[in-house]
Amino acid sequence: MSIPKYPIPSWVYDSVVYEIFPERFAIGKGKTIEDKRKLYESRGGKIENWGVPPKATKNHDHVRVFYGGDLWGIEEKIEYLKDLGINTIYLTPIFLAESNHKYDTIDYFKVDPQFGGILALKKLIKSAHKNDIRIILDGVFNHVGKKHVWFEKAVKGNKKYMNRFIFYETHYRAWWGAHSLPELHLEEVEVKDYISQILKKYLELGIDGWRLDCGHDLGPMINRYINATVKRFSSEKYLVSEIWTYPSGWDMVDGIMNYHFGNTVINYLTGKLKNAGVELEKAYKETPNIHGCWNMLDSHDTERLATVIKDKFLRKVAILLQFTYPGVPVVYYGTEIGIEGGKDPECRATMEWNENKWDRELRDFYKMLIKLRKTESALRFGSFELMSNEPLVFLRKAPMVLDDIIVIVNINEEKEIAFSVPDHRLLSGTPFVDVFTQEESYIVGGVLKVKLAAKSFKVLKVSNKVVKGYDQYKRIS
Amino acid sequence: MSIPKYPIPSWVYDSVVYEIFPERFAIGKGKTIEDKRKLYESRGGKIENWGVPPKATKNHDHVRVFYGGDLWGIEEKIEYLKDLGINTIYLTPIFLAESNHKYDTIDYFKVDPQFGGILALKKLIKSAHKNDIRIILDGVFNHVGKKHVWFEKAVKGNKKYMNRFIFYETHYRAWWGAHSLPELHLEEVEVKDYISQILKKYLELGIDGWRLDCGHDLGPMINRYINATVKRFSSEKYLVSEIWTYPSGWDMVDGIMNYHFGNTVINYLTGKLKNAGVELEKAYKETPNIHGCWNMLDSHDTERLATVIKDKFLRKVAILLQFTYPGVPVVYYGTEIGIEGGKDPECRATMEWNENKWDRELRDFYKMLIKLRKTESALRFGSFELMSNEPLVFLRKAPMVLDDIIVIVNINEEKEIAFSVPDHRLLSGTPFVDVFTQEESYIVGGVLKVKLAAKSFKVLKVSNKVVKGYDQYKRIS
Repeated sequence: MSIPKYPIPSWVYDSVVYEIFPERFAIGKGKTIEDKRKLYESRGGKIENWGVPPKATKNHDHVRVFYGGDLWGIEEKIEYLKDLGINTIYLTPIFLAESNHKYDTIDYFKVDPQFGGILALKKLIKSAHKNDIRIILDGVFNHVGKKHVWFEKAVKGNKKYMNRFIFYETHYRAWWGAHSLPELHLEEVEVKDYISQILKKYLELGIDGWRLDCGHDLGPMINRYINATVKRFSSEKYLVSEIWTYPSGWDMVDGIMNYHFGNTVINYLTGKLKNAGVELEKAYKETPNIHGCWNMLDSHDTERLATVIKDKFLRKVAILLQFTYPGVPVVYYGTEIGIEGGKDPECRATMEWNENKWDRELRDFYKMLIKLRKTESALRFGSFELMSNEPLVFLRKAPMVLDDIIVIVNINEEKEIAFSVPDHRLLSGTPFVDVFTQEESYIVGGVLKVKLAAKSFKVLKVSNKVVKGYDQYKRIS
Repeated sequence: MSIPKYPIPSWVYDSVVYEIFPERFAIGKGKTIEDKRKLYESRGGKIENWGVPPKATKNHDHVRVFYGGDLWGIEEKIEYLKDLGINTIYLTPIFLAESNHKYDTIDYFKVDPQFGGILALKKLIKSAHKNDIRIILDGVFNHVGKKHVWFEKAVKGNKKYMNRFIFYETHYRAWWGAHSLPELHLEEVEVKDYISQILKKYLELGIDGWRLDCGHDLGPMINRYINATVKRFSSEKYLVSEIWTYPSGWDMVDGIMNYHFGNTVINYLTGKLKNAGVELEKAYKETPNIHGCWNMLDSHDTERLATVIKDKFLRKVAILLQFTYPGVPVVYYGTEIGIEGGKDPECRATMEWNENKWDRELRDFYKMLIKLRKTESALRFGSFELMSNEPLVFLRKAPMVLDDIIVIVNINEEKEIAFSVPDHRLLSGTPFVDVFTQEESYIVGGVLKVKLAAKSFKVLKVSNKVVKGYDQYKRIS
């Protein structure tokens, strides 16, 4: 018999995530980086002014350049996030660490004072929850920073701590060999207990879930172990794992960061991958926890979407697919206003708060899609059924037929197409309405015919008309 | 392709329901029935003193006898419910209606003033939520009371309302022919819209879900329609339907009131049904939404458990199975303290608040099981695998092997038994600990051997011992 799974927390189906790199989003309490200078320089960091593009340095010391963003700043921007419509914030790591990215943890039980410490986190959780926004923290458990309390003792030969790492004759095991990131020995009971304590401490503080860094390095067993700890706490707490693979097979967690989705879409729209529809459908069918996965187009680990896809129509197609493919859309801070940025650290630039520099039309497009995803059951719960690979046409079949949605993307010349809609509940004469243009198309005998302009997309929603008490759907649901 | 399902709200997995018949639970605000006399007599009701057993009358006018219970009273007893440990309250109907049971709705948009009106409901929701207790209301949509606004107009020939019911030459369609309960014409758009409005009004007020009365009369289509309305509102809102059938096949809702479970168990424990284990396993396997179903042993529609099973050991077995079979345990108010009662209206007696009259040992047993269900992942998420029909032995296999639980019930003489435990993750030498006695049994090569006293039960939990850093589960999860 197979092993039972934890259900994906139901709120995840309604979720739209906003990813924030806290160092670069906003400085709170009316401060500037100058006011906070000591917090960084006293710990060997350099400061830089908001708006100056981050650049890589050869000796990698750009990870010690600080712009001053903190959790107070995020809390003060909740109004902005509410207006955008997102309902979940994912924060990259916030615990005490040397770098600006904080993936090199010194102490998991301290929120870095550069980010405002535990008080700022508590305030952020409280304000977010008051506004129906959930908070997800980043758990970095594959490795620690070399100043981590255990490691500092272990590396000096303290036997009590040595088993928690792996020491060789001349060195220790480190993430991709990077000395600054010694790997934890995850099969040791003390290490697993330690991870459980960390997970629980912040769940008790009120966070709604964890994102696991380097989920592939942790492996299936530790992913399962961590999800068990989270779910023992409450079936409403969420776990998503950073795993850069084909998405199937990782259903011991609620979901993975689905970079496969993003890579498929981006390669399709840049002309290199022809069978996006077929490949996305296959991945959907093989991934039982697809609704718990994150649809990634960019993040702190990739070039920004606007840099990868400069063409505005194609970029909008990518975003449309992010919101209409099964799974949770993730908006990387600033991508909604068109910020560009190359590979790390360029993709970690400061957020632009001067509205005149925003791509407002793009932001409105995001707002519209975010609203659509919340109101449309098909996008939250529906299955994915491919009807045409090129132009790309798929059905999101909903539990109720009147909630069905069809998405059409035509990246080529204008044409008229017809296709079968594989839902036996759809009756002849049912109008489908394009949510962008309000144009109607009618299904006849299970076939829908649609005119497509060159370079265009449609989102068609089932409609139903009742005439003098006659409703052809009276006994169909 | 099959039709997609809504996920069961994740909090339901953690849920223990307490069913309250509001007229009979508690009178709030320090009042007695005397103080409230006018509320009942002005509407043609009779009053009766708390504690006097309700009796059936030939002309059925016992449905107009009132003891004065109200929502204020329930709100004041939340401390009692917290102490018991339940986290969900199901209220039988509370909307304006003539009878004491309120299944004959006059106006769905009014909370009956006999129960304290809308203010009392708001207060109850607020206090309950503050104490992490959820509220489920009873939706009676198959029929209305004959004083319902629409029906009063329709029966006088007002054509605007006649289509919402079914009129024959000499009569109208009524629930089981009962004139007082005219059936709604559920396929009419106005009726469906009306139901949606009612559902939404109280969801907006903050309730956490609905129980559907007479779900079998509504039929699959209306059940699906109602669940769609609820889930469009939020994927965290719950719908359970009153359906007295074999539980499989009703997965267009989150779950049904699983009276099949209760009837199987009661008939088994009273010697009439031999294959309880086999039959419960079959029902489990065939019912994909079993975790969303309610494990019913009694309710306002049945004799009370203490009346059906007088023997205390056997009654405890029934309760143990209610908390260890997949699905949500439902405690009918007063059953936890041993209140007896025959068929309706005897099972609707007033709650006993004199602690000296309680069966405290029984109540402690409930408290222990409620706690167990909350802490044990296997009981919340686990699969059900039968290992022996007699004595009854089953495994609740958990996502993490160290969360596995085995339940053993021996209703006959003492014996020693051995059985295979079908979980490949369980390693030789693993101790299982009885949560009641702390006695240990050891599994060897996948087989567990256990001594059973006559008339006894066990709940065995996997344990794990780490010796000098050696953990045989280091690479098994």
